[in-house]
Amino acid sequence: MAQIDFTQEYWLTAAQCNAQRELPLSSLIRQIIDVATEHANRIGVGAARLAEDDNTWVLSRISIVMDSYPRMHHSYSITTWIESFARFFSERNFVIRDQDGNPLGYVRTVWICINRTTHRPADISALAADAPKDPQRPCPIPAIGKLHLPDHFDSQREYTFRVCDIDFNRHVNAVVYTSLIIDQLDLDTLDRHFIRSFDINYQHESFFGETVTIASQTDNLTPSQESPAVMTLSGAIMRDTTPCVLARLTLAPR
Amino acid sequence: MAQIDFTQEYWLTAAQCNAQRELPLSSLIRQIIDVATEHANRIGVGAARLAEDDNTWVLSRISIVMDSYPRMHHSYSITTWIESFARFFSERNFVIRDQDGNPLGYVRTVWICINRTTHRPADISALAADAPKDPQRPCPIPAIGKLHLPDHFDSQREYTFRVCDIDFNRHVNAVVYTSLIIDQLDLDTLDRHFIRSFDINYQHESFFGETVTIASQTDNLTPSQESPAVMTLSGAIMRDTTPCVLARLTLAPR
Repeated sequence: MAQIDFTQEYWLTAAQCNAQRELPLSSLIRQIIDVATEHANRIGVGAARLAEDDNTWVLSRISIVMDSYPRMHHSYSITTWIESFARFFSERNFVIRDQDGNPLGYVRTVWICINRTTHRPADISALAADAPKDPQRPCPIPAIGKLHLPDHFDSQREYTFRVCDIDFNRHVNAVVYTSLIIDQLDLDTLDRHFIRSFDINYQHESFFGETVTIASQTDNLTPSQESPAVMTLSGAIMRDTTPCVLARLTLAPR
Repeated sequence: MAQIDFTQEYWLTAAQCNAQRELPLSSLIRQIIDVATEHANRIGVGAARLAEDDNTWVLSRISIVMDSYPRMHHSYSITTWIESFARFFSERNFVIRDQDGNPLGYVRTVWICINRTTHRPADISALAADAPKDPQRPCPIPAIGKLHLPDHFDSQREYTFRVCDIDFNRHVNAVVYTSLIIDQLDLDTLDRHFIRSFDINYQHESFFGETVTIASQTDNLTPSQESPAVMTLSGAIMRDTTPCVLARLTLAPR
């Protein structure tokens, strides 16, 4: 009987915390990838199974909405399940819970299957039948969307990818992009606000030695009953005129 | 009965790996800090106990010698014990073992106790009597030494610390310095060599927004029976003319 969901327990040490003594968003994304990988392996749709057909999973989009973050010296857990399993992609959701089991936030992700030789989308319909899906399970955050390149930017800087930025697949690590976008904010802003939502679209891979431009645009928002967010940052990581990554985050008062 | 040592088990996921599909040295240092913190807490000499006297631990020096690194999808463990507990500092050692219990490498560290108000060394003699020490336990790597600023540098670059570089104590994270030093190497060098030894001395704290110069000097070595290392990199992270961090690593062929 295939496991319909998978939960990993964590404990947040001091050395793992950010300046606000919380789980960094970049670490949360690394753990989301870890949990997704482990669940996929357990139900027989992991990278090893896809490699039999010369295919692999590529993380395409992440959408995160948090009420608050796991805190230093606290336990938390991440649970994942599959919402859908289509011909060329799969939607996988997550809930992050505190030590009492209360939800701290939710995550939606889209994973595309590509052929490792052609780099074209690969048909995974044959696996779909066996993959345990739970489409009715609530994930009370907006449907995952496509981000667009902002019209203009109010902040830009250059960055060259170095050895510590490269992952086991020889690409720039998905987690590194997240830190580069968050680094467009300053410490005082993050002391007064938390990252209420974070969306990222991975569009093109980057590699060792490449220089990119990290560009962002900040706008004030009018908080509403639905969303307490007061500020948005739209960011792009560009290689020449090609956006490798698009991201958007909103900040809410602590 | 105070616990004379403490062991933490780990499993290396793909998302945690570097480009060589091994545990990154920066992650090893984070885990060393985690394991030291947990052992110190368990034996009653952790940050909470020191805070009663307005004191805190500061990691001063690390010396690591590795035969090889934990590999992707493998288990490993880190064991720590106290070698000495003096008036103003404590020496704490570590062994990293593979899934079969064979040593992969050893670590020596020096931790200084400072007063949080005066920032001066604090006397911890009163705690020494109760702390379980194991001075006879073998740690077969050279005694930890003091590094010196190299005479000249063959590579220099500037870096400005951003929000994701800051730790729970509002300083630049000890792990970030390690990545900045390793980033002086290129991918091809690390594909052909592994970091045989790594020494780092933390001399002065850095803070959000500060710009530092990362400078390094590379020299070829003559490998000997005692050490297979073929290359050394001496690095410094300087704020103006003040070295915040000195580091030295050697590379051996894979």
